[in-house]
Amino acid sequence: MAQQERAVRTRRAILTAAGEVFDEVGYEAATISAILHRAEVTKGALYFHFSSKEELAQAVLAQQLSSVPVVPARELALQRGLDEALVLAHMLAVGDPMVRGSVRLTVEQGSPQDGLDRRVPMQGWIEHNMDILSAARANGELLPGVDVAAAARMFVGAFTGVQILSKLMTGRADLVERVADLQRHLMAGVAVPAVLVQLDFSPGRGAQVYEEARQAGRESEPAGVE
Amino acid sequence: MAQQERAVRTRRAILTAAGEVFDEVGYEAATISAILHRAEVTKGALYFHFSSKEELAQAVLAQQLSSVPVVPARELALQRGLDEALVLAHMLAVGDPMVRGSVRLTVEQGSPQDGLDRRVPMQGWIEHNMDILSAARANGELLPGVDVAAAARMFVGAFTGVQILSKLMTGRADLVERVADLQRHLMAGVAVPAVLVQLDFSPGRGAQVYEEARQAGRESEPAGVE
Repeated sequence: MAQQERAVRTRRAILTAAGEVFDEVGYEAATISAILHRAEVTKGALYFHFSSKEELAQAVLAQQLSSVPVVPARELALQRGLDEALVLAHMLAVGDPMVRGSVRLTVEQGSPQDGLDRRVPMQGWIEHNMDILSAARANGELLPGVDVAAAARMFVGAFTGVQILSKLMTGRADLVERVADLQRHLMAGVAVPAVLVQLDFSPGRGAQVYEEARQAGRESEPAGVE
Repeated sequence: MAQQERAVRTRRAILTAAGEVFDEVGYEAATISAILHRAEVTKGALYFHFSSKEELAQAVLAQQLSSVPVVPARELALQRGLDEALVLAHMLAVGDPMVRGSVRLTVEQGSPQDGLDRRVPMQGWIEHNMDILSAARANGELLPGVDVAAAARMFVGAFTGVQILSKLMTGRADLVERVADLQRHLMAGVAVPAVLVQLDFSPGRGAQVYEEARQAGRESEPAGVE
């Protein structure tokens, strides 16, 4: 194994372990030693990649978007946005440690002293949703009068809360279904009728599109990296 | 001042102080001594009302719904639901300590060992929204095919997330506007068109209905309690 490849693997193992620990106990209670133990790496290896718990947490926050595999392009931009929401719900429901840990870091207020910038992933999701809604507008998928910036915030905010509620009430067992429900209602307010009737809101798409996206991702990666 | 009245005031002062401290630092970092200091009551008075930090937190959680003044009945049940959401957004935005503290306790995962039942306020809001949607159905305000239980969860979940996002991105400066936006979109998916066009989504209703509700509450209270 080349040295660079080993470094990439180590970094990934540390981030995954950090995601797990942050998901389980939150930022305050998480310790570097718990993360070391979970990642099965040496202290030296960890500090080579990250100088502090704060830097680790910020890296977990920064990886939130890229932890979700890229959903292949769809004929309708709104179907792509919908599929991404279902994939994210699926990943949270089945327990992807990176996504779960990062989401917990994002929604917990923490203390003003902890210095974490929790806006990074939220801003990323808002911008990504604005891109999708802008593409939808260019395709003629949007109702006139839809404010793309406001709608993007609404999609991101509403998803955030629906996943918190599902976590609290059912341990995320009904999350994909709840997100499909939410999307059905929100899309009714932004999509023209001819597009709305074509959108597929089946909760089963969460798992199915996740596999499709991972497959597509693997095929486009340079050989030997996975 | 009668003894019972004094006890009610003391209990309220302790709960308000607890709400403030939980809002500022979260459950884990909150201490009984910080709450004592804030409430300006004696240790004995606090332990007379609450035996532990956990019991205090559970009382703050339990008071979440009743902290929001009762919105006077409207001709349209959906307007009442909408007004309640705007009032809650207004109270969070202007910094009501009980509501802020209770909301922070609700959305933070905490540790499995802390023993807090965060489902209490969520279940309360879901049931309250189901009542409103059922009244709306009886009035003929709802589109056919709306699932009242699923829609109630969606309203509660989406509100939760929109307020987290607004807190994170703008310190809740745009919260009332974002909630009005959300309601406009969600109502489009549940209300019949003749009702939808009558609903007033003005963000300014948050402050205005809050005052109206408090006034109505004061008038209906027995003399001397306030």
